[in-house]
Amino acid sequence: MLETIRGVYESYGFSPLETPAFEYTDALGKFLPDLDRPNEGVFSLQDDDDQWLSLRYDLTAPLARYVAENFQNLPKPFRRYQVGSVWRNEKPGPGRFREFTQFDADTVGTNSPAADAELLMMLADTLEALGLKRGEYVIKVNSRKLLDGVLEAGGIDMSKRGTVLRAIDKMDRLGAGGVRDLLGAGRKDESGDFTKGAELSNDQIERILKFLQLGKPGQDFLQQVVNVTGPNDLAGNAYDDLQDIINMCRNSNYNQDRITIDTSIIRGLDYYTGPVFEAQLTFPVKNEDGEAVVFGSVAGGGRYDDLVARFTGQQVPATGVSIGVSRLMSALMQRGVLESAEAPLAVVLAIDDISRSFEMARELRNAGIRAEAYVGTKKFGDQLKYADKRGAAIAIIEGSDERAKGEVTLKDLALGAELAKSIESRAEWVKDRPAQKTVARDKLIESVREMLKGR
Amino acid sequence: MLETIRGVYESYGFSPLETPAFEYTDALGKFLPDLDRPNEGVFSLQDDDDQWLSLRYDLTAPLARYVAENFQNLPKPFRRYQVGSVWRNEKPGPGRFREFTQFDADTVGTNSPAADAELLMMLADTLEALGLKRGEYVIKVNSRKLLDGVLEAGGIDMSKRGTVLRAIDKMDRLGAGGVRDLLGAGRKDESGDFTKGAELSNDQIERILKFLQLGKPGQDFLQQVVNVTGPNDLAGNAYDDLQDIINMCRNSNYNQDRITIDTSIIRGLDYYTGPVFEAQLTFPVKNEDGEAVVFGSVAGGGRYDDLVARFTGQQVPATGVSIGVSRLMSALMQRGVLESAEAPLAVVLAIDDISRSFEMARELRNAGIRAEAYVGTKKFGDQLKYADKRGAAIAIIEGSDERAKGEVTLKDLALGAELAKSIESRAEWVKDRPAQKTVARDKLIESVREMLKGR
Repeated sequence: MLETIRGVYESYGFSPLETPAFEYTDALGKFLPDLDRPNEGVFSLQDDDDQWLSLRYDLTAPLARYVAENFQNLPKPFRRYQVGSVWRNEKPGPGRFREFTQFDADTVGTNSPAADAELLMMLADTLEALGLKRGEYVIKVNSRKLLDGVLEAGGIDMSKRGTVLRAIDKMDRLGAGGVRDLLGAGRKDESGDFTKGAELSNDQIERILKFLQLGKPGQDFLQQVVNVTGPNDLAGNAYDDLQDIINMCRNSNYNQDRITIDTSIIRGLDYYTGPVFEAQLTFPVKNEDGEAVVFGSVAGGGRYDDLVARFTGQQVPATGVSIGVSRLMSALMQRGVLESAEAPLAVVLAIDDISRSFEMARELRNAGIRAEAYVGTKKFGDQLKYADKRGAAIAIIEGSDERAKGEVTLKDLALGAELAKSIESRAEWVKDRPAQKTVARDKLIESVREMLKGR
Repeated sequence: MLETIRGVYESYGFSPLETPAFEYTDALGKFLPDLDRPNEGVFSLQDDDDQWLSLRYDLTAPLARYVAENFQNLPKPFRRYQVGSVWRNEKPGPGRFREFTQFDADTVGTNSPAADAELLMMLADTLEALGLKRGEYVIKVNSRKLLDGVLEAGGIDMSKRGTVLRAIDKMDRLGAGGVRDLLGAGRKDESGDFTKGAELSNDQIERILKFLQLGKPGQDFLQQVVNVTGPNDLAGNAYDDLQDIINMCRNSNYNQDRITIDTSIIRGLDYYTGPVFEAQLTFPVKNEDGEAVVFGSVAGGGRYDDLVARFTGQQVPATGVSIGVSRLMSALMQRGVLESAEAPLAVVLAIDDISRSFEMARELRNAGIRAEAYVGTKKFGDQLKYADKRGAAIAIIEGSDERAKGEVTLKDLALGAELAKSIESRAEWVKDRPAQKTVARDKLIESVREMLKGR
């Protein structure tokens, strides 16, 4: 799966970058993922010099730090991809882990909407390269500036912006009721923990909820936005940017079924400044209780023009996409589009001479066949049980009789298991030996190849 | 590089496993990497439930925890590989990082020396698959039990074993003098920090140093060992095990030039119980000051039969190998055997219509050519500078003139740079246009292919 994503990103001209797991906490600064939590959502510790370090909570903040440090020497725009673990100090839950893998691509150093549009199209290509069909996913785009227009129109103090964002971002988990509480006085969760709200007025709350529920974009979408914001420059410019992005996608035949505007997409992190987007799966998946549920977001991102400026003072516009690998993988596995990457395996059992097993395994490997020599106990029963438990395709046996005759026995374990189901007595099983054959030692490779055919 | 290692490990029948970056600190227990350091060499923090967590310092301890938790369901032996970051809370220095990547393979659940021998042979195969030639590396094997025999013969208290091990392991950094100090009263480093020593007697120290400097194994190697240990069961059994391993390697034609016994190999970690080994590069590399130095170990491992028992009480023998990816990579890059994995890149410049650039880049990608559309500023100078800085092979240009004629211009950037060196005046450069041609738009793919030939 990672190789597939890497392949698409590389084909678009993004280059690999690795950064450390830790950043200095003050480099992550005010953009911490969950200001409502102790430690503000990250795992932190002090090093020997008493400096605070935090494990990265995403791959974007470290990229901003890297760009700030190396700005002079980078091509402009700078395009990198990165895959790695990120850590969030938050309550774990179904599908929410404290460590998970992200696969990011970012374009740093241009404010052109082309950079955003390209990421949307690349994300669509990636999801399809991973095996999703047209219609099984949709990428929804919105703009933070559109929301900022709504806040401005509602007279909502910008100091409350972060709290408002995090409240809205919990829509899929808590529903409109929960979000309403978090925009108002606050909310007590099942465990009794109380989260303080943004303390907006009812009018302000209704205006935001109305914006989130705007109809699908069409001829009158701008009018709908204006209905919520009133005449508002912020919202107007944001609308133009969004329209640019959508037009570029349409020119390249990425249509409404793949990339569409949706005002309910906000993203939780503080640092986004313009377009934000999210890829969602459109088919239901089963949760741990076996119930069909909407899976939600598997990737997201957006424009973050102010992040690099925190280090250098110089504004460096940037936009990026992040795939939640662990979440997407679990959805793809449920959908059955993710197949095991392991080639079929031949296990050479070590009846009495391990060096002969090593030799056969080596011959097979040199012929491009995945093969292992059994290095455990000498009990034959254990050895066969092992090959079976490993899911091996073939067990290769050279007992002393066979060795004397210059032969080896190949056992087709998959076929054997199938046949065993239809065989009633052990006597019959032994008599027929249907999934097993003895061949000359020097025909080992071709016989194994023959048996693996069609696997 | 990671793909190459993965390929060899998989061909031997090892399967991938991932474990979290954190383990509960008490799961890492007494086997911490550096008991002489604050925090004992690991990075730790407390979670919400006030439990101490530590970042893994290697991939072996987490494997032992995993095996203990899943023992019933695993094939025996259980063979897994894992690649990932590990963290050491120690003083960073040249080639010593606090975060680095390891690539491990382990066989858990058998005490057969065949499992150890296989790892040694697989390690040799891996190093050669990465481009090292026969003779550019050597894998040295020793046994902790042989050393234990020496300690026993010297009447050295086993409670001092860990301190002795860590002292010996610093041989390549500190030399015999530094190790002697650490085996005795202690040692003050350049910064003035004092490390307490093992406080052995002079006789005991000399016995250990003599053992470490035993001659290369040959006919009289056992006799040499006995000279240091006296008649000693521990050392005798260890010698037999080592001999078994070496014989298996020899039977498979892995000879002295690749795998050899060396009594100076000890490995620093406490948990090893039997054979230990280390792969070393035999060619000098340059350090940061440009001096030729011995690079030292790039991989190591050994048998750790007691690690799983810490969780379950049940002894589960195990052995493993770990490649220090970051270190090995820097050596391979110096040797010039590690080439860039990136395919040559074509950059489509966006003169005025980005959608047309997107379209050309897509056509090229669909034809299997790595291609990006330039999404930065509209200034042509910036665009060419970008393509150059990216190390792109080709820049593709469609200005309005070209578009009107249904043509595109291809600029061979690598060839252009070469030619530019021999061209004296800008006029000549402009006149000849030697590395540039204009082709029909519908010949784009084949013209780019032509230009990339031989790259």
